[in-house]
Amino acid sequence: MRLSQYHLATVKEVPADAEIASHQLMLRTGMIRKLAAGLYTWAPLGLRVMRKVEQVVREEMDRAGAIEMLMPTIQPRELWEETTRWQKFGGQLLKIKDRKEQEFCYAPTAEEVVTDFARNELKSYKQLPVNFYQIQTKFRDEIRPRFGVMRAREFVMKDAYSFHLGQDSLGQTYQAMYDAYTRIFSRLGLKFRAVQADTGAIGGNASHEFQVLADAGEDALVFSDGSDYAANIEKAEALAPTTSRPAPAAELERVDTPTQKTIEDVAAFLKVEPSQCVKTILVQGSKGLVALCVRGDHEVNEVKAGKLAEMPGESALATEAEILAVTGTRPGFIGPVGLPAEIPVIVDRSAAVLADFICGGNQDGTHYSGANWERDARVTRVEDIRKVVEGDPSPDGKGSLRMGRGIEVGHVFQLGGKYAEALKATVLDESGKAQVMLMGCYGIGVSRIVAAAIEQCHDEAGILWPEAMAPWRVAVCMINPKGLPEVTQAAETLYAQLQERGIEVVLDDRGLRPGAMFADMELIGIPHRVVVSERGVAAGTLEYRARNAAESRNIDSAELFALLG
Amino acid sequence: MRLSQYHLATVKEVPADAEIASHQLMLRTGMIRKLAAGLYTWAPLGLRVMRKVEQVVREEMDRAGAIEMLMPTIQPRELWEETTRWQKFGGQLLKIKDRKEQEFCYAPTAEEVVTDFARNELKSYKQLPVNFYQIQTKFRDEIRPRFGVMRAREFVMKDAYSFHLGQDSLGQTYQAMYDAYTRIFSRLGLKFRAVQADTGAIGGNASHEFQVLADAGEDALVFSDGSDYAANIEKAEALAPTTSRPAPAAELERVDTPTQKTIEDVAAFLKVEPSQCVKTILVQGSKGLVALCVRGDHEVNEVKAGKLAEMPGESALATEAEILAVTGTRPGFIGPVGLPAEIPVIVDRSAAVLADFICGGNQDGTHYSGANWERDARVTRVEDIRKVVEGDPSPDGKGSLRMGRGIEVGHVFQLGGKYAEALKATVLDESGKAQVMLMGCYGIGVSRIVAAAIEQCHDEAGILWPEAMAPWRVAVCMINPKGLPEVTQAAETLYAQLQERGIEVVLDDRGLRPGAMFADMELIGIPHRVVVSERGVAAGTLEYRARNAAESRNIDSAELFALLG
Repeated sequence: MRLSQYHLATVKEVPADAEIASHQLMLRTGMIRKLAAGLYTWAPLGLRVMRKVEQVVREEMDRAGAIEMLMPTIQPRELWEETTRWQKFGGQLLKIKDRKEQEFCYAPTAEEVVTDFARNELKSYKQLPVNFYQIQTKFRDEIRPRFGVMRAREFVMKDAYSFHLGQDSLGQTYQAMYDAYTRIFSRLGLKFRAVQADTGAIGGNASHEFQVLADAGEDALVFSDGSDYAANIEKAEALAPTTSRPAPAAELERVDTPTQKTIEDVAAFLKVEPSQCVKTILVQGSKGLVALCVRGDHEVNEVKAGKLAEMPGESALATEAEILAVTGTRPGFIGPVGLPAEIPVIVDRSAAVLADFICGGNQDGTHYSGANWERDARVTRVEDIRKVVEGDPSPDGKGSLRMGRGIEVGHVFQLGGKYAEALKATVLDESGKAQVMLMGCYGIGVSRIVAAAIEQCHDEAGILWPEAMAPWRVAVCMINPKGLPEVTQAAETLYAQLQERGIEVVLDDRGLRPGAMFADMELIGIPHRVVVSERGVAAGTLEYRARNAAESRNIDSAELFALLG
Repeated sequence: MRLSQYHLATVKEVPADAEIASHQLMLRTGMIRKLAAGLYTWAPLGLRVMRKVEQVVREEMDRAGAIEMLMPTIQPRELWEETTRWQKFGGQLLKIKDRKEQEFCYAPTAEEVVTDFARNELKSYKQLPVNFYQIQTKFRDEIRPRFGVMRAREFVMKDAYSFHLGQDSLGQTYQAMYDAYTRIFSRLGLKFRAVQADTGAIGGNASHEFQVLADAGEDALVFSDGSDYAANIEKAEALAPTTSRPAPAAELERVDTPTQKTIEDVAAFLKVEPSQCVKTILVQGSKGLVALCVRGDHEVNEVKAGKLAEMPGESALATEAEILAVTGTRPGFIGPVGLPAEIPVIVDRSAAVLADFICGGNQDGTHYSGANWERDARVTRVEDIRKVVEGDPSPDGKGSLRMGRGIEVGHVFQLGGKYAEALKATVLDESGKAQVMLMGCYGIGVSRIVAAAIEQCHDEAGILWPEAMAPWRVAVCMINPKGLPEVTQAAETLYAQLQERGIEVVLDDRGLRPGAMFADMELIGIPHRVVVSERGVAAGTLEYRARNAAESRNIDSAELFALLG
């Protein structure tokens, strides 16, 4: 591509409303332009990158035996009613009435349509397993779209859905997709981790998120320093302490803590470590309040809490009024000692091995010291209900946990029978009996990957594209203010030679000053840059610089071809 | 591709609600599945074909210097208000409210968004000309979607928009797009014509439709048998007769035609040719009724009529009540003789050279014979207002016109300043003055091409794909009921050899009966079929048949590779 024939529109200013690096850089490079809240036009430079991602995704899906199809973006309400998601999907579902007042939605995902397709197309176990995918525009009416294409309303997603008779088959395809995703993100040149994810209310058996590692990531992740273990913090198990609970040594004693309501204040006031305190949180259970007790230096994991038998599937804090009504005490002074009998007391594994601990006094302005489980405080059950922290042992028993942040770009999920049951998608098995199929679903945020890669790969000068995602692998910058024919000739020859070798090359023939040209090429992140100038032509050299190198160096074209492979 | 690993779902029955061949065949081959009215899922086989079309379109657009981008499908009302198309587009515009009650539409076309993009991105004449395109899903809320993907509501379109300073530049890009479209449809292997099209109310200067020729086409086309001239019938000029009008020879005479209201009835009753009669149509003009007079064997061209100075931009018939009120006569007996003076009489060029003609008597149950222009009937103006007919001289003076039917699959259009003026899209010219840009727009119905090709290329056994559009170029059918390893081996070897040569091949390894296998391969239109069987392996031959050949013949693999190129 000759830049003189292209539309490159970089800007120097950091856009005011862009909060994160990828959003700023996508605007500054002119990769995207905002049309309205959460709606972005992919300008030519941006689309070049997205198409590369799309192609890698397509190749690896095909290689893994998935079959591409294309479903409508506009889908009828009736089908979404069959799974009850017309209501349950919530405000993110963009609902539409056509000119005949028929109701539709703009698909945020396609389980309904693909399962409907499958129930019509698939009749026999002989047609299974099968894995259908599409790369298609999706819409989620985010209440607060932000971070550019990272959380846009309209976006491009690869979604795949597999159909099976039996869990073994589902497990095999799940593993094949896991492997395909690993190849995809590896080929794209991204640092990523497949982390165990919570399967949420959707049910299902197994789920992994593919997370591009980046400091600005929305998701908190944990990794083992001694193994491959990685998980979303929501999912990571906090192992039970290997020590057992000491016998009580102290007497239970009520102490005045007139203004100390937080663990930190209480611990400082009583001159103990927070880890010697028990924090008690009252949440709204299915049948009244539930007490959750964790160590003072730990936090309740809401996802784990939401799954307790006492909970309605999610975890919501009790209000101050509810707490006052049931305990007679204000928040800040609640503890497990003497709580009304109707309140179940769920104690975290780490809190359960404490003895002689500090906890709320269930009376305003007081705490207990010397409290002990069983002797002083009821334990309904010991469970894992806390968030893991840095240094916790890895759940696989190997190494300790470290914390990090990631951007979710892929998700593989064993749906099981959820959708196929709702839509009665059955096939005949070997004995001629109708069986509901099992399903897996596998998503990749194609447009989001572009932003996630920038989030991971940038410096103060701009983007550092991995080679597989770069709009062009190499830029030939022609510096020729005098218009010397030998310089033009040398640049054109090099440009043609690179093209002949199948190397994606952009020729900067715009005639800009060298500084402006270099700044543009660095900003848009071209991995390799060569300068063709009067001096270089005279010396028979090219000035080469890798985007991530500190200095440029002189090489000849043979060296250039060799290093570009 | 191995068919055993693919999802092929052909059906024998002709679907009841599919009226035309392409719709029937797309359903029978399992290329598409209906989700709702005008909404189709592209099953794997269909998508394979559509992606081939898309790729040819993309390659030729790129070759012609157009730059690909991607605009949102969901577009804000505000922008569509700026061009007044929020109202004017009519019921086909699917309007949407988001969760915040903001209004949007699902883009049926993208002039507004691309012109908004251009007004923000393009500042200087130095950036021009530029031609942006996208291949993107569109939505038109057709009141009567039909013919499958031929007239679907959701469809895939390539739309391009060029920006210029000056008509010369617009003309050059228009020609480049015309040439690119010619290459696209040629590469796709379709019989097509670029026909002059009416530019409609949109204004603009030049317009060509690219029509795939097919008997079931919705558009009536005319071609010269002596030149390249081709036009949509709406647009084709009916040349003035070379003969001049004879002098009147007969007397004007009122004749009773008590029940004869049509030209055919009147001509038969009076024993004259319809070409000796004048047909008079009253239409609603801007300031009352207008009379349109054509020869009895001709039809009024509504598009031409709509452009008359007396007309409001479109042509609508007067109602019986209006005709009765103004003329005192019922339709069927209207004629130019003695019409009220306030009604302009527009006479077609061919009708204007008649003498001694028959026409309505402006009195129920009567006609005139021996009528003559000027002497008996007012002529406000002579114009070209009729549809051309078979045998008319070609407007370019070379040959005669022949009629045909076509399916519009592409359209190139010189928009001029229409959108850029409305959106104030200007650039600075060489003298630093802001100038409104000129625009061209260039559409291709990517999904429609698939249906149009089938409409053109099918027989009673199924589709006959042109090689460039075929899902696979060659099918290797393995007939091996005994499970002989040498037959399997031969089929696998041939399959691998074809793949190595870069030839797209499908291996039918489903183990069906030969008849069922052949019927499927013919139905889905694979251009070349080879059979690997026990007998063939023993004889060292392959049974080869081209899809369009009457018979199969035995060849060896070297011949096969040679004929596949």
